Amino acid sequence: MLPYNIHHVAIAVHDLDETLATLKDQYTVEPMSRETVSEQGVEEAMIALGGSHLQILQPTDPDTPVGRFLARHGEGMHHVAFAVVDIEEALAHLAAHGATLIDETPRIGGGGHRIAFVHPRSMGGTLVELVEVHDG
Amino acid sequence: MLPYNIHHVAIAVHDLDETLATLKDQYTVEPMSRETVSEQGVEEAMIALGGSHLQILQPTDPDTPVGRFLARHGEGMHHVAFAVVDIEEALAHLAAHGATLIDETPRIGGGGHRIAFVHPRSMGGTLVELVEVHDG
Repeated sequence: MLPYNIHHVAIAVHDLDETLATLKDQYTVEPMSRETVSEQGVEEAMIALGGSHLQILQPTDPDTPVGRFLARHGEGMHHVAFAVVDIEEALAHLAAHGATLIDETPRIGGGGHRIAFVHPRSMGGTLVELVEVHDG
Repeated sequence: MLPYNIHHVAIAVHDLDETLATLKDQYTVEPMSRETVSEQGVEEAMIALGGSHLQILQPTDPDTPVGRFLARHGEGMHHVAFAVVDIEEALAHLAAHGATLIDETPRIGGGGHRIAFVHPRSMGGTLVELVEVHDG
């Protein structure tokens, strides 16, 4: 299995523009990309930070997973993503070791990467995303 | 200012041993260090992952910040930590740009690093820790 990096930490917010302006002012960081991922119902910005990224998520609609997260919890960290080389192998390993998979098979996420989510009940109440990345 | 890396993502849990066993089974990762940081009321384990770390936190007592977090929210992501070269300069920059500092001056955290926390209301409902690290 062996995830080889923390690919990103995702933060769910109400207003992507406002949060990006705050991040620029306070931390002098700016996004390297921004896109709408319709299948997940989010507009997302990726900020490179060392070998990892901050991902800022704004729901496209209240009736989406991130929209419902915001309604329940308010703004805050939403998930952590681990980079893996072979996502099918990773999913098989996780399932064989008792993890509850949200996605039994990979789907396409931001940046065109193959991704899959693992349920928070599987480890430390934390929603985990796997991201298949071959170039680090 | 410019944080230059995500130093770690911290996850608060009830049972550090159990979570470390799960992480070993499911993700084949193991801690590189484990220590009790009395001032913060936590026992913490650090797992290196690429250029960043997962930090797993168990409170030493229910009446600690992490103990109260667990009582309110249950297990889950507690904070994200950014590596900075000069923590005084970073705190001054954050204060000058409207951030609410929890620690006006640095204190000593895990690994002997100088650290400071920034209030979640400052950015995306997310508790941010600054960690002064000179060797990357």
